[in-house]
Amino acid sequence: MIYLDHAATSWPKPAGVIRAVEEALSGSAANPGRGNHAMAIQAGRVLMRSRSRLATLFGVENPVDIAFTSNTTSALNLAIKGFLKPGDHVIATMVEHNSVRRPLEFLKRTLGVKVEYIPVSQEGEINLLSMKRAFEENTRLVVCSHSSNLLGSIAPIEEIAKMTHQHGAVLLVDAAQTAGAYPIDVKEMNIDMLAFPGHKALLGPQGTGGLYIRPDIDLVPHLHGGTGSQSEELEQPSVRPDRYEAGTPNTAGIAGLGEGVKEVLAEGVENIYSREWQLTQELMRGLADIPGISLLGPALGAPRTGIVTFNVADQDAAEVAFRLDREYQIAVRAGFHCTPLGHETAGTTLTGAVRASVGYSTTAYEVNALIKAMQQLYRA
Amino acid sequence: MIYLDHAATSWPKPAGVIRAVEEALSGSAANPGRGNHAMAIQAGRVLMRSRSRLATLFGVENPVDIAFTSNTTSALNLAIKGFLKPGDHVIATMVEHNSVRRPLEFLKRTLGVKVEYIPVSQEGEINLLSMKRAFEENTRLVVCSHSSNLLGSIAPIEEIAKMTHQHGAVLLVDAAQTAGAYPIDVKEMNIDMLAFPGHKALLGPQGTGGLYIRPDIDLVPHLHGGTGSQSEELEQPSVRPDRYEAGTPNTAGIAGLGEGVKEVLAEGVENIYSREWQLTQELMRGLADIPGISLLGPALGAPRTGIVTFNVADQDAAEVAFRLDREYQIAVRAGFHCTPLGHETAGTTLTGAVRASVGYSTTAYEVNALIKAMQQLYRA
Repeated sequence: MIYLDHAATSWPKPAGVIRAVEEALSGSAANPGRGNHAMAIQAGRVLMRSRSRLATLFGVENPVDIAFTSNTTSALNLAIKGFLKPGDHVIATMVEHNSVRRPLEFLKRTLGVKVEYIPVSQEGEINLLSMKRAFEENTRLVVCSHSSNLLGSIAPIEEIAKMTHQHGAVLLVDAAQTAGAYPIDVKEMNIDMLAFPGHKALLGPQGTGGLYIRPDIDLVPHLHGGTGSQSEELEQPSVRPDRYEAGTPNTAGIAGLGEGVKEVLAEGVENIYSREWQLTQELMRGLADIPGISLLGPALGAPRTGIVTFNVADQDAAEVAFRLDREYQIAVRAGFHCTPLGHETAGTTLTGAVRASVGYSTTAYEVNALIKAMQQLYRA
Repeated sequence: MIYLDHAATSWPKPAGVIRAVEEALSGSAANPGRGNHAMAIQAGRVLMRSRSRLATLFGVENPVDIAFTSNTTSALNLAIKGFLKPGDHVIATMVEHNSVRRPLEFLKRTLGVKVEYIPVSQEGEINLLSMKRAFEENTRLVVCSHSSNLLGSIAPIEEIAKMTHQHGAVLLVDAAQTAGAYPIDVKEMNIDMLAFPGHKALLGPQGTGGLYIRPDIDLVPHLHGGTGSQSEELEQPSVRPDRYEAGTPNTAGIAGLGEGVKEVLAEGVENIYSREWQLTQELMRGLADIPGISLLGPALGAPRTGIVTFNVADQDAAEVAFRLDREYQIAVRAGFHCTPLGHETAGTTLTGAVRASVGYSTTAYEVNALIKAMQQLYRA
């Protein structure tokens, strides 16, 4: 099996990640923060260690400003629904994932929040002039995907942060495709909130993720419930991370995530990015050579995450992916990638697109296997 | 280590549960429902199998009426916030966990929902006459803990369901302490929504849980985001379970949960309940013999879940638990158990209480070890 669907979830997981999950399940699965016996204390330590490593990775000063969530979607729901108030204006882009778009559209319907989606070029470049013009007096939030899950393009977060803060708004970055795969420093980049998955480039298990929240931003919690602290209070405690983490956490999953982050820190995100970038370039060159194949997203040589999306003339994307899977045991993803406006931008609303995505474990051999398979299938 | 904190989380997990998690992490961790390649299909199957087993366990006709959530708290937040509308009246009880109370209090503050908490006796018996009188014209929801996490008392769900439906309301049952430990059949018991944890008596990993939702009840989703289906729609799809399961699920955790439920189904909940009940009776008899110890909850001989909560005269509950842990390696829980009104009822608001809880793996030897330790510590 050649796995080129890392943008959906990374695979295989490092042995250390699986071992950490197993150890947590076997040995320290007690309920963290809800008891004082040895196992509960051990579970609390597991959480703190993973949180600290994430803080190191993202340049977060105080680990408690990172709240664990069950995935990026939960993190984005917490950030968006917890921050916006009736009548607020929000700026987002045309390549946001449904995990941004659907919460925004929900608030549009229910709270009268106004949303403007900034156009993006076919290569995925956000029109910054349009963005600048989109600010209104009541613009409180800008939501921006760090890298489009359809195109692999990378947003100029620093510039967007500057523009956002000049207008007194807050920047929420969706790092679904970049956390662990592209350098992120919330302080240097002036990111106010950062939503990230645990199971993609951070190499952890599914069911993990989190949200960094700038210390002075207070969100309405998305989950109300027990926290093991201030049990007598009717409201969620104000202390972090408890405020945003009601209910029993995914202790074993978070233990695994901690090992994934450790592996990422050991190699260094810069190195991982440059390795994966080389692989995308190789893949793009190989595919571009095949007549009838058109590549989406940034041009050859430009920065991009591990995503290479393409179409084959006259071929349904799903059919291409199906043949790669059945005839070559190559896993890629076809379809609409939860980003309808992104497809509108890329002109692929009717056909969908085939997305190959490289990751931490991807080798040149695997990339070449995809190129060869595509040659055999579609070079007449 | 003698583990008597099963009401917080079950431990040890069955070997089959750990193996299933490991296998899912190693082999089928692809993103379910988001791709058509072999691994994504395998991940989808894992979810469906666990869902079907849960349906069998709870007497749910169609497995898609069970939505996976990351814990009971998420399930209760979905049910409560997704169902209630401004001005609605809700009935709950004095022994609800903070995972019920805090969402209700939140809606009270923000939506003007009105909430009445029905008194409960020191033994945990709900005052059904008070409940009957509490119904108002706009009572739309009754929320009831199936078994108090403080007292172990079991609520007469059938009677409460009857009363609820006579008044045209809907019954939400919090099965945090009963799912897998006490028989539940949503059809026979007329339960409209059932929130349950995966990591307690269902023997699965933390980070799992779910909500059964009667087919004709439509909730506002708690999470908005990608579902892998109807990707072009601005709203969450109406099809179940997708409607309530945005974002990447905890695939490996749910695989483990499926094995836990399999084990529960194989032994049979009736048998598990009767085995655990015998152990609680033994523990109660042993503790009652020690002067100065007072037991909370239902009397000897009465139905109860695996929870035995007690106080030692003149002793701080935390100190008792601390000594059991350090001197005898016995894990119990001391403190306030996230149920402030429950403590008010039991008269333990100032002292807290020591909670020992037996579970699937508990042996008579372990129960006797706790009795002996308490004798040594507190029999003058």
